[in-house]
Amino acid sequence: MTKIYVVKIGGNIIKNDKMLDLALRYFCRIKEYKILVHGGGGKADFFLKKMGFYKKKIQGRRITDKNTLNIVVMTYAGIINKNIVSILQKYSCNAMGLSGADGNCIKSFIRKKNPIDYGYVGDIFNKGINVDLIKLLLENDIVPVLCSITHDKMGNLLNTNADTIASNVAVSLSSKKNNFLVKLHFSFEKNGVFNKKKNPNFYYEKIDFNLFHKLKKDFIIKNGMIPKLENAFFALQNGVYKVSIGSPIYSYNDFKKKTVLCLN
Amino acid sequence: MTKIYVVKIGGNIIKNDKMLDLALRYFCRIKEYKILVHGGGGKADFFLKKMGFYKKKIQGRRITDKNTLNIVVMTYAGIINKNIVSILQKYSCNAMGLSGADGNCIKSFIRKKNPIDYGYVGDIFNKGINVDLIKLLLENDIVPVLCSITHDKMGNLLNTNADTIASNVAVSLSSKKNNFLVKLHFSFEKNGVFNKKKNPNFYYEKIDFNLFHKLKKDFIIKNGMIPKLENAFFALQNGVYKVSIGSPIYSYNDFKKKTVLCLN
Repeated sequence: MTKIYVVKIGGNIIKNDKMLDLALRYFCRIKEYKILVHGGGGKADFFLKKMGFYKKKIQGRRITDKNTLNIVVMTYAGIINKNIVSILQKYSCNAMGLSGADGNCIKSFIRKKNPIDYGYVGDIFNKGINVDLIKLLLENDIVPVLCSITHDKMGNLLNTNADTIASNVAVSLSSKKNNFLVKLHFSFEKNGVFNKKKNPNFYYEKIDFNLFHKLKKDFIIKNGMIPKLENAFFALQNGVYKVSIGSPIYSYNDFKKKTVLCLN
Repeated sequence: MTKIYVVKIGGNIIKNDKMLDLALRYFCRIKEYKILVHGGGGKADFFLKKMGFYKKKIQGRRITDKNTLNIVVMTYAGIINKNIVSILQKYSCNAMGLSGADGNCIKSFIRKKNPIDYGYVGDIFNKGINVDLIKLLLENDIVPVLCSITHDKMGNLLNTNADTIASNVAVSLSSKKNNFLVKLHFSFEKNGVFNKKKNPNFYYEKIDFNLFHKLKKDFIIKNGMIPKLENAFFALQNGVYKVSIGSPIYSYNDFKKKTVLCLN
């Protein structure tokens, strides 16, 4: 089986030029097939404010109206994606930035407007990942860099969570016919999933499904970490070989500091 | 020889949603291999102003400082490029948006800072167009949509004139070893190169190199039309089969209203 890494970068890594550069240099060290997925929510908020729009949220979740969508596309598919690609190119990694519209890479549908209308938010179709395109690129030594914009093939660009894109890409590549052994790593500025109640520096080396539910019940895992871990377990449950969360620092043959997720 | 169309869209087409939609629908009618190139200067000015920056020009030419570069990347590679790609996808044209950094598609160098420092402006290297990548995409039924951002492979994104990109792409594809017959069309909101001194609706059906110089001397061809025609003649002088300027409206096997350029 051919090994393939799907690495998501997010959190403060994107906002901090030095951390981003470091994360990308470590990404370049991966010798196997690899795909990068990125978000960049913080930067979108900055540009929204700069353009005089305000962030709309309901129950803590962003509402993507038309103005927000335009700025999110400019930020994710524009400045962040192209900046990452140009840095990777500098380090001789033949990166190619893609939104879900490019080559029909990721097809999604607008989220149902009931009970909450999230606006231009896309949920990925069951077979929405264009695996043939990703394989074509990888086989030609091109490294896909996916931003968190998808499309509905009806002319609408849609805002989609980057963790969800990463886990869906990993799951689609794990389909048996592809014969890939997929490792998915969610990297951010921390070394793993922390439990500060135990010790300010303590993070779990391993979390299984039962522990995840316990930590959620105890409010150790909360807010944005909940969907991240849900995406991680979704990937594990659907054929992804290994899923981890932690630092972007990659050594000889794996990411260094991380929490490994397992089903039991 | 395999026919290939390089179509540049610019001017007010990009600013006007209806005109853009129409131009893209006509672009979809081309059955041969095709590549779209776009600029979008007007929209960048809008966002620059919106973000509180002002347009810097010396002798009528834009100075691309770091803030301007960021907004130009967001506008060209972000909102305009992805919007065009998603519309083309709607019309079943398998478009893929690319900046020059993506797959190292277009390599350029920062323009010399003497006598004028234009900032982050890139001039394309002699062999800067990645013809192998373009061929790979075309042969896999993918239509490249190039925006006017290039890179220097040293981590810098650079602002590059879209007409220049279109003519350089057309010239590179015309290299004998590729066996392509390349047609280059610069489309905008007019039917061709006008001469309003003759008649408000008069445009030339054909302009040769001598007539171009005469019209330039007589101030019939001026401002942005001068570099556009220089790019057009550069393409003709370097192996491009046919070069025209005019409307984006495409009929059975060619663009309808246009000025055809010829060397003599």
